[in-house]
Amino acid sequence: DKIAPEVNKQDVWSVFSPLAGHVPQDSLNLGQGFMNWAPPQFVQDAHADALKQVQANHYQLPRGSARLRKAISAYLSPAFKPATGGRDLDPNTEVQVTAGANEGMYAFAAAFIRPGDEVIILEPFFDQYVPQVTFNGGVPVFVPIRAPKGADAHNVPASEWKVDLDELRAAITPRTKMIFFNTPQNPIGKVFSEDELRGIGKIAEEHDLLILSDEVYDCLTFGGKEHVRIAALDDFWKRTVTIGSAGKSFAATGWRVGWAIGPANLIQPLLAAQTRIVFCCNGPAQEAIAVGLERALENGFFQKQVEEYEERKDVLLEGLDKLGLPYTVPEGAYFVMVNTSQLEIPSDFEIPDLIKGRARDWVVAWFVAQTAKVVLIPPTDFYSKPHWNLGENWIRVAFCKDPGTLRQATERLLALK
Amino acid sequence: DKIAPEVNKQDVWSVFSPLAGHVPQDSLNLGQGFMNWAPPQFVQDAHADALKQVQANHYQLPRGSARLRKAISAYLSPAFKPATGGRDLDPNTEVQVTAGANEGMYAFAAAFIRPGDEVIILEPFFDQYVPQVTFNGGVPVFVPIRAPKGADAHNVPASEWKVDLDELRAAITPRTKMIFFNTPQNPIGKVFSEDELRGIGKIAEEHDLLILSDEVYDCLTFGGKEHVRIAALDDFWKRTVTIGSAGKSFAATGWRVGWAIGPANLIQPLLAAQTRIVFCCNGPAQEAIAVGLERALENGFFQKQVEEYEERKDVLLEGLDKLGLPYTVPEGAYFVMVNTSQLEIPSDFEIPDLIKGRARDWVVAWFVAQTAKVVLIPPTDFYSKPHWNLGENWIRVAFCKDPGTLRQATERLLALK
Ligand SMILES: CSCCC(=O)C(=O)O
Ligand SMILES: CSCCC(=O)C(=O)O
Repeated sequence: DKIAPEVNKQDVWSVFSPLAGHVPQDSLNLGQGFMNWAPPQFVQDAHADALKQVQANHYQLPRGSARLRKAISAYLSPAFKPATGGRDLDPNTEVQVTAGANEGMYAFAAAFIRPGDEVIILEPFFDQYVPQVTFNGGVPVFVPIRAPKGADAHNVPASEWKVDLDELRAAITPRTKMIFFNTPQNPIGKVFSEDELRGIGKIAEEHDLLILSDEVYDCLTFGGKEHVRIAALDDFWKRTVTIGSAGKSFAATGWRVGWAIGPANLIQPLLAAQTRIVFCCNGPAQEAIAVGLERALENGFFQKQVEEYEERKDVLLEGLDKLGLPYTVPEGAYFVMVNTSQLEIPSDFEIPDLIKGRARDWVVAWFVAQTAKVVLIPPTDFYSKPHWNLGENWIRVAFCKDPGTLRQATERLLALK
Repeated sequence: DKIAPEVNKQDVWSVFSPLAGHVPQDSLNLGQGFMNWAPPQFVQDAHADALKQVQANHYQLPRGSARLRKAISAYLSPAFKPATGGRDLDPNTEVQVTAGANEGMYAFAAAFIRPGDEVIILEPFFDQYVPQVTFNGGVPVFVPIRAPKGADAHNVPASEWKVDLDELRAAITPRTKMIFFNTPQNPIGKVFSEDELRGIGKIAEEHDLLILSDEVYDCLTFGGKEHVRIAALDDFWKRTVTIGSAGKSFAATGWRVGWAIGPANLIQPLLAAQTRIVFCCNGPAQEAIAVGLERALENGFFQKQVEEYEERKDVLLEGLDKLGLPYTVPEGAYFVMVNTSQLEIPSDFEIPDLIKGRARDWVVAWFVAQTAKVVLIPPTDFYSKPHWNLGENWIRVAFCKDPGTLRQATERLLALK
């Protein structure tokens, strides 16, 4: 039954959201990945203006408003030029606006998965991938991105977490239809290198697999690390749909605007599915994001934003250094994986029913929320159950929060020492 | 293949939308059902305010913001009281915010349809129902709402279009899982009577079927006609999910906010599906609609709105009277079905490839768009192919437009005489 497992188990977001009422309301929330600031003023203003335009308040085209598709093409075409042979992305056939990146991935799954198709998912994975596959009749097959030896004892760079290509190859069967993965990677903070992407892409090519490349953190890489797009390498464009997110790009996670980029023959079925799922996306928000992208190309918004994230990351890492637990140094996205092997949970700490039957990381996250009033995300929901052991000694800390909150949170965490 | 038919055929909305570029840009659009005015100022203002609140711009709970669910409960509880035994709808378990009514229906389909399940759809139907069913592995089975004899020769009230309950019963098999229908009905304008709903509900009860009652036009009935909710009758509550639409209620079809109301054991799977499909709905729009519902309960907005629609309807019907084609007098929603049997299409009128292979109504709609520059909707996309004959001599005219536009459009239509 496709629903039962989803219905009977609360997902990590609804348990570890102060809004949902399980963890203390006065917690500092470094859990779910959203910002504690509003979208930039120029985007907010464009949104307020759009509310006054009659047409922006009504149905948009299912593929997205013409202005937004044009803006996305202008913003992203340079990155895809190696694949498109120098021309711009066609806003009418290669750019699809989605109701958040999440719905874009669901529409991809709905469009291309046939019952029984196997879908390779690199893990840890954004937890939504799995039910998106299963709701559409697919069978997830998991291939881990493994932490390097010693990651439980000292800090390691995210780049050292690796996919073993032989392990990936071994997971492929005649039923395999596609690969889902994410770069910059949530929760590891890994930014896949060109070589790594080429390795994955070649395997996809050998077995004629589709690729869903979730690149929602594409504008957040650190230390000058380059975000490489698999769709721009070699001949992978023709089998790849790349997903992006206005929510992550403009601190507007609640606006539900994202995009899917790919060749016309892949975008067309995605559009057909999306039309039936949501018909179209929020009009005023599309207008605002269109203006946002247009302006950002001129005013250097993304450069400034990444500098701010770099500072937030540094504030968090400094605080974690005081705590003394080893962590993985992120190269991108806005999460840090902290190893909790050395953290002791008092043996008399009471575990509520809500989190019984979960792995150790849930107990740690629950303990931290109750004791230090800091909400973090236990990552085993990002692993298949047979691989819980790879995640249960880690905890995910988000740094998409202002430096003051990050400082205060790390001070609270010191109470755990 | 679940995609192919969708991909290869353009839907009626994308052909008959001036935005999409097939019909003249300077057409008057009485096609797709959206208003040519903006949402009311008090709702717009609440939306603009919400943009300034950090939290409203970020992820909301998948079931919807607490404030909006509470407002929906306050707004709708009176209507459902016969079913709930006098208590209010529980905003935590019986009210689900959806990303537009459309996505609510898709989530219902995703939650409850298993491959091979049959779904009875009363026709004419909102065209999205069919792919929503088929994308989720269901098999649509069609039962017509039939026009009364003589409807091609003179005006008839929408109430005379009828479902034959024997025909409905005959359509049920052991695989039947649910019934989809809509009241007030798009495109007929029929408002199902208590007796009719009871007839349908009893059959659902006998065969233990779920009911999806699409009531997006619930606040639009004319001449004092009462909108009856099947979920409020007898014991039908426990098998019914009722869908509503903020877009229709507040002239904000592009905001993508709707709701699903039902017993906790039906809303829970719908929530599980919806969480995976869109995760959550647009935050600022939810806040605005919450305020909208709160205020509307005090300021008489819906009463005033329905009076305005009554005027728009009268303006359109007056214009149609001059045209002299018979029509069905609507009791609710904002469409009029006009019979075109007597309209002659010149034999040398050129039919583009885009509409080849469609029924006569598509030719009529194309002819009207090119000749009179008025966009109307051919209703055979709302019928199963074997029943195209029931729809091909009708055309749907929307009156969710200001009186001036309606007058101008009907004057342009006189050119057809
Ligand atoms: C469905 S919640 C999404 C938030 C997010 O991307 C994350 O925190 O991983
Ligand atoms: C998917 S378009 C919706 C518009 C509408 O409800 C209608 O015109 O019937």
